[in-house]
Amino acid sequence: MTDKFDLCHEYPLFSELSSEQMRAVSELCQEECFYPDITLFEDGTPATKMYVLVDGEIEVFYAIGEAGKVKVDLIRSGEIFGCSALVTPYVHTSTARPKTRIEVLEIDTVALRELFEDDPRLAVSIQQQVIQGLLARIVDLRLGS
Amino acid sequence: MTDKFDLCHEYPLFSELSSEQMRAVSELCQEECFYPDITLFEDGTPATKMYVLVDGEIEVFYAIGEAGKVKVDLIRSGEIFGCSALVTPYVHTSTARPKTRIEVLEIDTVALRELFEDDPRLAVSIQQQVIQGLLARIVDLRLGS
Repeated sequence: MTDKFDLCHEYPLFSELSSEQMRAVSELCQEECFYPDITLFEDGTPATKMYVLVDGEIEVFYAIGEAGKVKVDLIRSGEIFGCSALVTPYVHTSTARPKTRIEVLEIDTVALRELFEDDPRLAVSIQQQVIQGLLARIVDLRLGS
Repeated sequence: MTDKFDLCHEYPLFSELSSEQMRAVSELCQEECFYPDITLFEDGTPATKMYVLVDGEIEVFYAIGEAGKVKVDLIRSGEIFGCSALVTPYVHTSTARPKTRIEVLEIDTVALRELFEDDPRLAVSIQQQVIQGLLARIVDLRLGS
């Protein structure tokens, strides 16, 4: 089994962290594998985890009026998702389901936010990467890709 | 003329700041008014300012291959834009032009990033609001609104 500390070095999300910060964050991370028969998270539910999609594809759904859950986006390898877990009110605004077998890095954001309290520079660094990820997602959505 | 310190109290972007932080940030802010005959910023140029759109509408363009500048988005009152000014490499990825007469709050992000160095909790607070703004923008783009 790969050491979690080594593992976290692979993720751009953590690229600016010191060894000490990386070690603390890696304790909150878990590599997981899921299949298309599950819902990863549901809109309106508490957002307690953020994810990096390591491999596979995830479909994103919104509940739109009487149409029910409508597919609105596709998340691909390398993308960060579930970012509602980082900002108040910490509630998911969408539903995420694996389209394929997926591998994700799952980050316990409840514990991460506690680390942020003690080490705001850690928060700044991770938030910066999240902002970059969201800006890239906005470019993709604007281009319809 | 409204005191800039009072003015900054009106913006959700600064809603979590202490009085001292608000006072420091307000020194970097300027209310400006522009008309449709100008380009607010151009893709590929250094991003040194971030904006809150107070009133009016802004069209966002991407340079797409031989098609040249193509309109990809519309920014409306209350939205934050120019967020590339907060993250490396601090270069605009889009071109922004007022569609109407606009009022904006212009934030000097070069100076703001220096404040962030001295006061990482200020950065955490503002970046939280930026993440919320970007997530709201992603919802709008996914819904095609």
